[in-house]
Amino acid sequence: MQRDNGMGYRMDSETNKNAVVLLSGGLDSATVLAIATAEGFRCHAISFRYGQRHERELEAAAQVAEAIGTVEHVVVDIDLAAFGGSALTADMEVPKHDTVEEIGDGIPVTYVPARNTIFLSMALAFAETRSVGHIFIGVNALDYSGYPDCRPEFIEAFQAVATLGTKAGNEIAAGIRIHAPLIHMGKADIITKGRELGVDYSITTSCYDPVGRLACGQCDACLLRRKGFRENGLEDPIDYQ
Amino acid sequence: MQRDNGMGYRMDSETNKNAVVLLSGGLDSATVLAIATAEGFRCHAISFRYGQRHERELEAAAQVAEAIGTVEHVVVDIDLAAFGGSALTADMEVPKHDTVEEIGDGIPVTYVPARNTIFLSMALAFAETRSVGHIFIGVNALDYSGYPDCRPEFIEAFQAVATLGTKAGNEIAAGIRIHAPLIHMGKADIITKGRELGVDYSITTSCYDPVGRLACGQCDACLLRRKGFRENGLEDPIDYQ
Repeated sequence: MQRDNGMGYRMDSETNKNAVVLLSGGLDSATVLAIATAEGFRCHAISFRYGQRHERELEAAAQVAEAIGTVEHVVVDIDLAAFGGSALTADMEVPKHDTVEEIGDGIPVTYVPARNTIFLSMALAFAETRSVGHIFIGVNALDYSGYPDCRPEFIEAFQAVATLGTKAGNEIAAGIRIHAPLIHMGKADIITKGRELGVDYSITTSCYDPVGRLACGQCDACLLRRKGFRENGLEDPIDYQ
Repeated sequence: MQRDNGMGYRMDSETNKNAVVLLSGGLDSATVLAIATAEGFRCHAISFRYGQRHERELEAAAQVAEAIGTVEHVVVDIDLAAFGGSALTADMEVPKHDTVEEIGDGIPVTYVPARNTIFLSMALAFAETRSVGHIFIGVNALDYSGYPDCRPEFIEAFQAVATLGTKAGNEIAAGIRIHAPLIHMGKADIITKGRELGVDYSITTSCYDPVGRLACGQCDACLLRRKGFRENGLEDPIDYQ
């Protein structure tokens, strides 16, 4: 059964096969886009220009959206840099290490305050205006940098916000569902899954501190990415300094 | 006891008397700013330029921040209009009525998708970068337009997101607390409270569809506001068409 959601279009959360996919241009979100596509979703990709120091991410996101295929790819400006407070947006040094083991246990300076909360909120607004019943996000809590907003309990809490804080959640049976298909996967498994689905990882970027198109190889993101390829006995197809 | 929260400043949620206050320039948020100030908080006001059709709101917010007194007033750009889908941001007609009773039961077209989720997310980021332990928001679920993201259960759900999705929530005892002091108050009581605290309502604006500085008097926001003043036996100090 279809219901009019009062916003000028019709929506049914059971049969709704449209999804908003958060696309950063990195390995994880490219894999998530491939997974959602393989599950039969028509994907609306959303990326953010949030004052990150490396515009390279947005270039990669556009290439990934094009390669995998999306209904649309929207880039939204959010001025997080106005607040400062993170190595990814402010003028701080990105920590470098020689091995994965050297990555600390605490929350690193590359943490961007409330970033995934903001990104999911924008995805929620986007989903509501597009009559979309699903949101996909590529967070994972195994081979990750220790950001609090990448954990399963955070995603569950945001699901409650999505259900209670939207028109869709109030007027449509199942509301908007948040999917985090990578949440319990290690980097090596993510890469295996993506390769099965034909993801071209040569066009993705993970580095927190790239020089042009060259990844640094020593930030947390580079180390975790390289470990994933190594564990699969594969060569990472991107170029490092 | 003070702890370093790892972001270059010190924070203690118990004694932290800094607050981020969401300030729209309307009657409710002006009252909330006065309440937080009266409770001894140093207030950091935040407003949003979100593609709303009436810039008048931001003018009023600046005047209110100035009149009540804040540590700073930050205006953040968010391009919600890129998504469309609401009478407040898109090219739709704002519904008009003659009496409060005519306001419908459903969620009106003036609902902006996920607006309070987005605003609270930005406030959360702002609070983290400023070492602020409290966020104040002027939602109320009595004399309101029926927006889902103004209800107590929504605020509770967002509190969980704030606790789980931030560095502050993980490293500091009580995390960042969301306060919604008006949530169970009717408009008349809000006005009574604000007047006790010396709020000058002549500089606030509530109208969804003003012409210059003149409120329309017939949108949901105007009707609820006028009802509040009428129930107090007061004249609303702003000008109507």
